[in-house]
Parts: sequence; C-alpha cells; structure tokens
Amino acid sequence: MLKKLTLLLVIIGLAFSCKKETPLIENTEKTTTIDTLKTYYTQYVNPFIGTSKMGHVFPGATAPFGMVQLSPQTNFEVMFEDGKYNTETYAYCAGYQHKDSTIIGFAHTNFSGTGHSDLGDLLVMPTTGNLVLDPLETKEGEKGFYSTFLHSSEEASPGYYKVDLDSYGIQAEMTASERVGFHQYTFPKSNDAHIVLDLVYNVYHHDNKNVWTFIRVENDSMITGYRQTKGWARDKKVFFAMQFSKPFKSYGHRKYDQVLYDGFYRKFNQSENFPEMAGKDIRAYFNFDTEAGEKIQLKMALSNVSSAGALKNLEAEIPHWDFNKTYEETSDKWNDELSKIEVETLSEEQKTTFYTALYHTNLSPIIYEDVDGQYRGLDQNIHTSEGFTNYTIFSLWDTYRALHPLFNITQPQRNNHMIKSMLAHHDQSVHSMLPIWSHYANENWCMIGYHATSVIADAMVKNVGDFDRKHALQASINTANVDYFDGIGYYKEYQYIPEDKNGASVSKTLEYAYDDWCIAQMANTIGDTSVETEFLKRSEYYNNVFDKSIGFMRPKLANGSFKKEFDPLDTHGQGFIEGNAWNYGLYVPQNIPNMIQLMGGNERFTQHLDSLFTMELDDKYIEKNEDITRDGLIGNYVHGNEPSHHVPYLYNWAGHPEKTQARVRMIMDTMYGPTVEGLCGNDDAGQMSAWYVFSSLGFYPVTPGSPNYALGSPLVKEAKLHLDNGKTLTIKAKNQSTKNVYVNRVTLNGKALKKNTISHAAIMQGGKLIFEMTNNL
Amino acid sequence: MLKKLTLLLVIIGLAFSCKKETPLIENTEKTTTIDTLKTYYTQYVNPFIGTSKMGHVFPGATAPFGMVQLSPQTNFEVMFEDGKYNTETYAYCAGYQHKDSTIIGFAHTNFSGTGHSDLGDLLVMPTTGNLVLDPLETKEGEKGFYSTFLHSSEEASPGYYKVDLDSYGIQAEMTASERVGFHQYTFPKSNDAHIVLDLVYNVYHHDNKNVWTFIRVENDSMITGYRQTKGWARDKKVFFAMQFSKPFKSYGHRKYDQVLYDGFYRKFNQSENFPEMAGKDIRAYFNFDTEAGEKIQLKMALSNVSSAGALKNLEAEIPHWDFNKTYEETSDKWNDELSKIEVETLSEEQKTTFYTALYHTNLSPIIYEDVDGQYRGLDQNIHTSEGFTNYTIFSLWDTYRALHPLFNITQPQRNNHMIKSMLAHHDQSVHSMLPIWSHYANENWCMIGYHATSVIADAMVKNVGDFDRKHALQASINTANVDYFDGIGYYKEYQYIPEDKNGASVSKTLEYAYDDWCIAQMANTIGDTSVETEFLKRSEYYNNVFDKSIGFMRPKLANGSFKKEFDPLDTHGQGFIEGNAWNYGLYVPQNIPNMIQLMGGNERFTQHLDSLFTMELDDKYIEKNEDITRDGLIGNYVHGNEPSHHVPYLYNWAGHPEKTQARVRMIMDTMYGPTVEGLCGNDDAGQMSAWYVFSSLGFYPVTPGSPNYALGSPLVKEAKLHLDNGKTLTIKAKNQSTKNVYVNRVTLNGKALKKNTISHAAIMQGGKLIFEMTNNL
Repeated sequence: MLKKLTLLLVIIGLAFSCKKETPLIENTEKTTTIDTLKTYYTQYVNPFIGTSKMGHVFPGATAPFGMVQLSPQTNFEVMFEDGKYNTETYAYCAGYQHKDSTIIGFAHTNFSGTGHSDLGDLLVMPTTGNLVLDPLETKEGEKGFYSTFLHSSEEASPGYYKVDLDSYGIQAEMTASERVGFHQYTFPKSNDAHIVLDLVYNVYHHDNKNVWTFIRVENDSMITGYRQTKGWARDKKVFFAMQFSKPFKSYGHRKYDQVLYDGFYRKFNQSENFPEMAGKDIRAYFNFDTEAGEKIQLKMALSNVSSAGALKNLEAEIPHWDFNKTYEETSDKWNDELSKIEVETLSEEQKTTFYTALYHTNLSPIIYEDVDGQYRGLDQNIHTSEGFTNYTIFSLWDTYRALHPLFNITQPQRNNHMIKSMLAHHDQSVHSMLPIWSHYANENWCMIGYHATSVIADAMVKNVGDFDRKHALQASINTANVDYFDGIGYYKEYQYIPEDKNGASVSKTLEYAYDDWCIAQMANTIGDTSVETEFLKRSEYYNNVFDKSIGFMRPKLANGSFKKEFDPLDTHGQGFIEGNAWNYGLYVPQNIPNMIQLMGGNERFTQHLDSLFTMELDDKYIEKNEDITRDGLIGNYVHGNEPSHHVPYLYNWAGHPEKTQARVRMIMDTMYGPTVEGLCGNDDAGQMSAWYVFSSLGFYPVTPGSPNYALGSPLVKEAKLHLDNGKTLTIKAKNQSTKNVYVNRVTLNGKALKKNTISHAAIMQGGKLIFEMTNNL
Repeated sequence: MLKKLTLLLVIIGLAFSCKKETPLIENTEKTTTIDTLKTYYTQYVNPFIGTSKMGHVFPGATAPFGMVQLSPQTNFEVMFEDGKYNTETYAYCAGYQHKDSTIIGFAHTNFSGTGHSDLGDLLVMPTTGNLVLDPLETKEGEKGFYSTFLHSSEEASPGYYKVDLDSYGIQAEMTASERVGFHQYTFPKSNDAHIVLDLVYNVYHHDNKNVWTFIRVENDSMITGYRQTKGWARDKKVFFAMQFSKPFKSYGHRKYDQVLYDGFYRKFNQSENFPEMAGKDIRAYFNFDTEAGEKIQLKMALSNVSSAGALKNLEAEIPHWDFNKTYEETSDKWNDELSKIEVETLSEEQKTTFYTALYHTNLSPIIYEDVDGQYRGLDQNIHTSEGFTNYTIFSLWDTYRALHPLFNITQPQRNNHMIKSMLAHHDQSVHSMLPIWSHYANENWCMIGYHATSVIADAMVKNVGDFDRKHALQASINTANVDYFDGIGYYKEYQYIPEDKNGASVSKTLEYAYDDWCIAQMANTIGDTSVETEFLKRSEYYNNVFDKSIGFMRPKLANGSFKKEFDPLDTHGQGFIEGNAWNYGLYVPQNIPNMIQLMGGNERFTQHLDSLFTMELDDKYIEKNEDITRDGLIGNYVHGNEPSHHVPYLYNWAGHPEKTQARVRMIMDTMYGPTVEGLCGNDDAGQMSAWYVFSSLGFYPVTPGSPNYALGSPLVKEAKLHLDNGKTLTIKAKNQSTKNVYVNRVTLNGKALKKNTISHAAIMQGGKLIFEMTNNL
C-alpha cells in the first residue's frame, strides 16, 4: 500500500509538474505554491534561462550529471562556414541560441556553459517529404533539412524538451537517462518520413574535425557505430547504439570523403540498404511510412568504450518504449537533487532563478563510464572504475572556485568520485598530471593553474570523501613540478614567471601560488610538514609580482624589472589572461590580509574596490564576443568571468562587510534573472550558478582549501539544506526584503557569529543559521 | 642432464643453422647433410625465394603464423607518388623487391604473397648524423633517411633477418616472437644516432591513408600508441608498445596535418621532448649517443586491442633483452613446423625449394589476438576467444584450394581455430556472412565466391576440428543467401548470374555452384537432407552457363541468351575474373565427370587440356603487372594465378593420368625454384606454395570438401609426414629421377591403389605410400 501511495503522490506531482514546470520563457507568471504532499522542485527550473547571448547553456533534456545531454542545435548559419574561424561561433558553445528560429537537429552531447566548445555528437533530425541530406541548402539551391520553429511551441523542464518542427509538422519530444537519449517524434501522415542521423555535424564545425565514423545497421531497427573527432579533445571517441520503436522501410547514407579502395563499391550498391558504412563524413537516413499523429520513438545510447558498451547501457537503462516512464524517473532524480535545498524567496522569479541555478550546478562534470564501470582513460585504454563512478568535463579554472565547494555540501559522494576520477586521470597521464581542463579522455590544456589541487584540498580540509589522501598529495606534488608545463619551470627558478619567458605571467604566478597553498593544506591534514613548508614557501611567490610603486600586481621580466608599458585596465598582453590588473590582481585568496597590506591597508583597499565597482570602463577594454562583455560588468568589476568572483566578498577583510552585503545582493539582482538573458556570461560548467546558489544562502567559499566560508547577505527568506549526513541546516533571513540587504547579526543555533565567516563543520552540524536583515547599519 | 644435452644439441644445430641456413641468394651451393642428431630444417629455408617480381613475399623475421612480420621496406621510389595509383606499387605488396638497393626502414606488419596490399605498420629506421625525418628527400633537396644496402650483407632465415645499412654504418638484425618484433642495431661511434618511428609510412601509400596516430612516451625508454588507417581494411587499428634497451637522450616528432585547436601549442614546445603526440601523420625520433659497435635493441609489441594489450604481449613474450634467446626460441618453433614433413629430394635445390614452400605455408593466416585472448572483432568491439586462438588474413579465394587442405594434414589444430575464427567473424558480421577476404577486423570483399564454406566442408568431411558443425552449416547457409552480395540474388533467381546484371558472371556462377556443393557436403555429414538437397540443386547451376554450341563456359544474359561477343582467350569482360574461358571454364571440381561429358567426353577434353598447355598466347592477352604474366604461363595455362591450379590434375579424370604426372613434374621444375624468382606469381598467402608441397608429395586436393586427393607424380625421393595423431606416413618414390616422372603403380601399405585417388583417412592412418616411378608407361 505504501508503495502505491508513493506512486500516487508521484503521479499527482507529475501531473502538476508536467503542466506547470515547463513555462514558456515569455510567461513568468506562476502559481506560488503546489498543494501536494511532495513539492516538485523541477517546476521551478526553467532551462531556457541563460540560453541567450553568452550564457552558453542549453535547454535540452538530461539526467543529473548525465553523459547524454540531448539538445536542439540552432547554430547552422554559423557552423557551416567551413574551415574559417568565425567569432560568432563562440555564442554556440552549447549549440543553441535563443534568438534563432531554425533547428537542424538534436545532438546528444553538449557542454553546459563552457568557455570553449566541442561535442555536438550524433545529430538526429526527423523530416518529411523529399529526402534532403544537406543541412542548409542542397546543391540545387533548395532548402536543407533544417526546420523553422517558434518558441511558443517549445517546452523544457529538467529531463524534458519539446518543440514543433514547423517545416515538417513534426512534434519533437525528448527525455534522457544518464546514458540514453529518448526521442519521441509525432509525425503527420506521410509515406515519405525520414529520420536523419548526421555524423558530420559538430559544434564548432571545421571542415575536417571528423577523424572517422562507422555505422552498422544491425537489424531493421537497431543501429550501432562510433565517431572519432579531433576537436578540442583531439582524440575523442563516442560510440553509440540507436534503436527505433518501429522498423524502417529502407535506409541509406551519403559519404563525403575520398574512397581509397573500391571493394565495397564493386560488390554492392552501398548507398542504399547496405548495413555497413564507414568514412570520415557520413550522413545516414532511415525511411518510414507514418499515419497522422503516429509516434516514432528513438533511443540513442552512448558509450565511450565501444558500441557493445552502448548496447549494454541501452539495455540497462531503458529496456522499454515507455517515454513517460523514463521522463518520470529522470524527473524524480532531478527532484531528488533539487530538493536538497528547499528555499523560500521574496518572489517566484527569485525561486525560478535559484532552482535554475541549482539545476545548472548539476549538469557537469558528467558521468563518463558504462553501466559496468568500464571507461576510456586518458591513455586511450579501457579501464574499470573500482570504488567510484568515473566523471569527465573538468573545467577546473572555473569550477574549483564555487562549484566543487558547493558539491562538498550538496554532492559530497559525487565530489569524492570526481576526485577519484581526477586521480585516475593523473595515473593515466603520461605527464603524471592532474587534469587542467579535461573532457572525454583528453586533456585540452585550456586556461591556467593546476586547480585540481584546490578541489582536492577543499575536500580534505572539509573531510569529504574516502579517496587516497597520500596519493592525492603525491599527484598534486607531481603536477606542480612538471617544469615544461606553462612556465612552472620558470616559476620555480625565478619565484615568479617572467613575462618575457611565458605570457600571462602574473595570472599564472598568482594562481600557482594559491594552488601551492592548497597543496600545503593537504600536506598539513596528513602531517607532512616538509611538503607543507615547501609549498607554503611557493605560496608566497605572489609577492614577487606586486609593484609597490603603483600598487598593482604587474608583470615582471626575467631581469627582475617590471615590464615598462603597463595598462592595469587592459585585459590583453598585460600579464593577465581574461582579466586586468584591477580585477585579477586581487587574486591572493590564501592570504587576503597580506594582500590588503600590500595594497596600502584597509582604507586604500576599500577605495580600490569601490573604484572597481563604480568606474566607467572605456569601450576599448570591452570584448564583444568573448568572456568580458558589457552584460557581465559592474563598473570595471567583471561578474561575467571567473577571476573576480571572490572580489565582492573581499570587503569583509577590509573592515567593510556591509559593502560585501550590498554588492552581492546587487549582483544577484542585476547579473542573474529568470529570463533567457539570465546569465551575464558563460555559466562555465556551473561555476556562475554555484556563485548564485552560495550567495543566495548567505555565504561563499572565497578560499577553497580553507574550512571557512565568507558571510555575505542571503537572498532567500528561508532555506533548508538537507545534508548528506542526514542533518538539516535551516537558514533564515529575518526581516528579509529587497531593501534589507544588510546583515545586522548572524546567529548559529542561537549563538552570535563573531567573525564574518562560518565553518564547513558548523554547517554540516545542521541547526539554525539566522541572518537578521536590515536596510541600514 | 637430459635438458643440458638437448640444449647442447640445439646449440650445435643453431651453430650450423646460423652459419648455413642463411645463404646469400647468389650462393646456392650447400652441404648436403647436417651431421647432428637433430636436423634443423630451418637451414633449408631461403626467405629470399620469390622476393623478386610478383611473388609478393618478404624476407623479414617472423614466428610461424606470427602477428608481427618484421621486414625491410624497399619500395620508397614507388610509394611516395601520393594520391596517384601507380601500377608499379603492385610489385610491393610485401614491401620488398629484390632488385632494389635502398631500404627506408623495417615495418612490423606485412602480407605474404597476397594479390593486393595494405599494412606496413610502424616503420622503424636507425640513422646517424644530422636528423632527417623525410624518407626520400628533404625540402632542401638533401637525401632522406633511407639507406643503401648490398644483398651481400643480407642474411635471412626463419625468424631472422640481417642487413648492413651502408649509409649509416649500422648493422640491423631482427627476430620476432608471435606478437613482438625484436630489433638489434649495431651502431658506429656517434653522438648523433637516431631511431625514427615513422607512422606515416604505409604499404600502398596514398596521401591520406592514415586516419589517426597517437604516441605516448611513457618513460625514457618506453613508447606506446596506435595507428588507424583506412586502407584495404578500411577501419584498421594497430596498437603498439615499443621499448628501447637504452634510454634515449632526447626525442621529438614532426606532425604534418592541420591543427584545429592550439591548446597544446600555446602551453608547450610540443615538437621536442614532449611525451604526447597525436595527429593524422606523425614521425617521431629518438636520439642516442653510441660507442663504436654498441648495440641498441628495440622491442615492438603489437596488439589489435589497445596499447595496454601490447604492453601485456611484450611482458609475456619477450620480458628480457636476450636477442639470441628469442631467435633461438623462434627458430625452434620453425623447426617444429618444418620437421612435420621430412623430405629427401634429388637435389639440395629441390630441398630448399620444398622447405621454403613449406615455410611460406606457415606465414598466414596470422594469430590475431593478445596473449590473454582478447581481440578486436569485425564489429570493432573487443571480444575474447573462448576455446580457440583467433586468426586473421583470410585470402580465401586463394587458400581454400590447397593451403587449408594442407593444414588439415600439417596444422589440424590451427585449421580448427581458423574455422572458429571464421565463425566468430560470421557472428560479428552485420551481414551474417563468413569471411570473403578479411584481415585486421575488416572484410575487404576482394575476389569472389564464399569459399569459407569449402574450408569448413573440407574439415568436416576429413573430421578435423571440434568447431560447432551445426553452427558452421547455418553460417554457410546464411552466407549463401545474402542476396545483395555480388549477384547472389540473381544467382538464386536465374540459376546463373546474368552477365548484364552482374559482371564476372561465369566465374561467380561456377564458384557459387562449387561452394554450394560444399554446403551440401556439410549438410550430408550431419544428416540434414533437406539442406543437402537444396544445395546440391544449386551446385548444378554451372550447367546453365555452358554453351554446348562452342564447348565453353560462356556468359549468359538475363534474357537467357549467351552474350554475343565472346573471346574465350580474353581475361577481361568475358564473364570471368583473372582468367579466361579456356582455364576458368574448367572449374567444376564438384562434378568433373559431368564437366568432361559437357565438353565432349574424355578425348575432346584431353585435347582441350593439351591445347591449353601448348598453345601460343598472343601478347594482347597477357598482363604486365598484375596476376597473369608470362612468368606464370605454360601455353595458355596459368600457374601464376589460382583458377587453374587444379587443371593439370584433371587429366586423371579423362583417362590420362600420365599426362597429369608429366605436367605436374614439369610445373614443379619450371614454375618454382630456389631463387629470388622462384615464385611465378603471387604466393597468395601460401596457396602457390601449398600447391608445391602437395604436388611434391604426389597428391593434390582437386576438390576440397571431398575426402579424396588426386594422385600426381611425387617430386621427393622420400617423405615422412609426422601426423598430428602421432602416426607417420612414409612416402617413397621408387626409382625417382628427373626423367622418371611417370607413376607405374602406387601401393599403400603393400596394397595397390586402384584409382587415381587416395583418401584423407588413408593418409591419416600412416604407413607406407609407395610410388613406383618410370620414364615411360
């Protein structure tokens, strides 16, 4: 009976959620409460938030941390400028831009919010009428297989996406389990219906990004194969098994590359109904007759191991054809994740913004192994995860800041597994390095630092996980001593990176110093004082790039003099990467008091921050299409990119916590929102959203690797954090209002907090954290 | 003590074999007997035999049926005509032509004798002096890394190859186990010695045959990686682990393809001492200092599964650095294989020719699995061989004729495993087909028929192997019913293949009919009369392409009329492939009496054969560079290609066995010999040599799938067949001489044979088979 009751409640919940949780982006009016016993938090998520401009998120269907992230691709105008780098393509990292009115298909892998792009694997597109295999335009100048669509026909919620493909009268719906995408296409009556499997399409298409593709038509409804690409991941392989709910009546493919040996061509008509296809660039199609309103379903299972692995994944995760069942299961998984933090907010908009942010923090790293634990390692060999689930997509320069610290609260088990995945990466690395920016069994070396050390140190000081801590320390030490990597040799030799030896030298010196401090923290937790001493010394090297004469971090040359030409507002060629000295120069999270001291003490430092937030920045310093745009700016403060994310909290250390409180509330109000433009810059695999989640709750991990959070000003009226240890932390903001942004007093279980910090241990104890809000201090 | 004695004998044997078994091809004088207790048959093998012109064999080092076949590549002048088909390249199927005087390196995979080419993987070349990475010529017009060499410095014996690379003063020696190539380079004094690993080189090079290459420098002496090519095998992957006996002092690589993403380039100087390389075309190099006479050794282990698999193979097969030990082990393996047939001949030349032929029958199919039984299947998934060793390289249109029948005597266990490998191929085939011509987890569809059925039927009627016979029958039936394959649908519909529907229609009709008869024989052995009846019916379809009005097999059109224009001497466009009606039209091995009847009875048929062997063929019918050349012709009879191989034995059925006897002796004398030109056409993976081995012994499998062999005229004076069942068959040719080519009487264990046949069962019983030879009858 209990089971039945639960089922009933689920069904009631879903009835609501199906109807209510997929608001059109135009319609932000909602009912404020759901009158069921169980609240379905999926209703507060709007996957369209941030899909405009530089948010780089996608509206498609995925399970939490799912390997399959199945989403519409709208970037066809851009992507087909073959061979030429087109700056417009940067907007299409997740394959979707809300301004577009055409869809060329649905791809099964997509980055969420990243600052570079790849993936877009296995594009599927249903069509009717004359078979067209060109996405844009045929040779005869006729329309390609893309379809127009209206946003009014779109619906999206966690694990679900729907759109009407107007060019064909087809309704497309999709859901997904972790490893399987589930499509449901409702066709019109047609004796000329097609489903195209386009293996040429890539996000960030170049004319030769494909290395190889391989397809087998196993029977009249099952297709297997793989694609290898040399994109951002230069040795990436995606295997698949694709099954139709109905046998196709015929099929075929077109191949675009040069044929060297013609055995196949002499023996067969390969282009039609021939079950074996291989080549650099292939588009296959499958033909059907359909009745009006007939649904053809399609399941696409992925594997990074083999097509046999994909078949295993298909069998294990979705052995049936019940689309709603899969959707319900995935929706429940989402609800489990989202309900870990129950919030009440001042408005429904805030609630939507909050839960969508929380949703965005559950999209990557992704699970990267088959159901049996086999996965492709960095050495391209097949490994089996022993005692963990293997993850990939580590955008660590971004995510070490707040996303992984958030995981230490919301996903300690997954974060443990992510660290084990990073250690496996190290063990498989020919450099003996932890990941820098890695995805799909490849290291793409994007951005700087070795911030896996921060993720590991943060988990160690917070006592998260059962990974091998000695091994983690050794892996970190190894990583910090790969002298040929990005100036590490110079950094060790000069105790800073000389700009004339290795560019972005200040950014690198600052970040290496912080990462080294993290290694020292690890050593401290396991009592290795010699390593601790060594790396504490390295953690002070930031001092060597501070120019006291001008009060800024500044690039220094090998001869010991500072670089002469220097514009602290410029983000290019000034020793920084994706930031200027005004912002990025504030990056000494491991010793903020000393940094403030260097910069002239509390008042001068406060003035610096005030100026930062209020100065007017000349257009020449602003990028149009990359990481620092007007949308993400407050004065010269860049919220749209990571190096400044800790900056608003620095007032705390300079004796002005009220300025932190006002700023973070102002940032939450202006840089986030429940619209397609609700992200002011790349979500960066969840980092931008993690900032919002933390800040909404009233605290933030300014220094990952330390056990303490900086207090800010909560946005929520109330929040319940249901912790992994079974305890609950209730956060209350008394007298919360849009104007009461200041915090008068904070009590934890009735006891006032003396400092502007709260420890992880205290949070994990649960209880009541009360912020007393006021509109002035 | 026994062990020590054996070792001593081995050493004595080897001392002889090392000195004597590697004669220069120029020096055919040898001692006639070896005075040791154990005869080392390797001394009678000369791997240079057939390395000139169209033999397509290689002189390099390999273990019997080894995956590694490590051999010098001399075809550089030809192979680098990128992108253009160059007919000269056909001569280089095995990478080596004896006329050449330059070597560009040593490749680890080579076909032996095939009629098409591929492989040439992982070219290694030692050099000294300025580093040169271009094989032919540098951009500056200087000499590439090739070396000149003299044949006088070459030595080769089973499992061993040696040459002096004159351009560098380096002596190169190599040996191999099944999965590992072992190089030993003796350098001059140099502080600029290099070993180049060229992943660009391919036999039959096209400018884009490579798909992808990947290298990791694991430490200062171990390299791993893989290469994927789209050659004849269009989805072929070779993984490797390469280890040096001495750490290199530095290394690097050059990459020739377009770089899409520059993360690696911004972070690193990748070209030197950077341990991770990937791209379409890569050449790596490793630098050493060497003393005069210093040996640098190199072990290259292959795997078709993964580089981890290659490492496993390396560890399992050659965990040491004792070059001689590996050579001795491999030499012993060769002796084990060769000593299965002990022969005495009229001359040492004949003995060398015989044992070299026997050697050539032990080079393929090759073992194609890791030491743990894992292998890459036709579906590109990794499988594990259960109860068999997996083999690849099935050149079945050639080898079903005599090579696999020979295996049923010399290698029944391996043939059993080869059949299991073919069944695994069927099970993995998306077409549910047995192999046609398959290699390296790919079907290349070369030539016609489905002759795996013949190999299976022959094993079944001879009671060889423990493969699943019902499954084998079903796999054969499946194969014979893939209607879209090469005219099978038409064949079933019309009971012949109409030439206007599908070319080479007569060859296909004849071969399908024979293969169908083989399926009927299988069905018969397991009592499936319905299948037997069905396929016996199909086996008679050859009647439908016989034109009684002209007495030739002749292409028929779909309308039932014979093709009008018809030249029975022409090998092109006349309904045959690689043969003409005169030769190929005699292909009804399943019912020779009826074929003779069709052709007018014994006398007219005998006249046909006589004419065939004696007519003068106009130049216009002869190819220069392909399969039918003057070298392989006797009149219009083509011994250099397979379709005629049974023909000299057909006289037996027409009442003229004496003509068979004279012809086969004449063929053995003129078409084979102990020189580099000792093969008159492609050895075709051992088929040409298997013909010689059988014919030398006095019998031949005219109809594989039948339990009987046709008797011919033995070349040997005496032969001992040491059979797998422990028995020995002694063959004696009484009064043997070059003139006594006729057989007066044949007795088996004292009993005269009445017919011109001997059964497999009789042979396997062992005993004495006596041919009484005479110079007239």
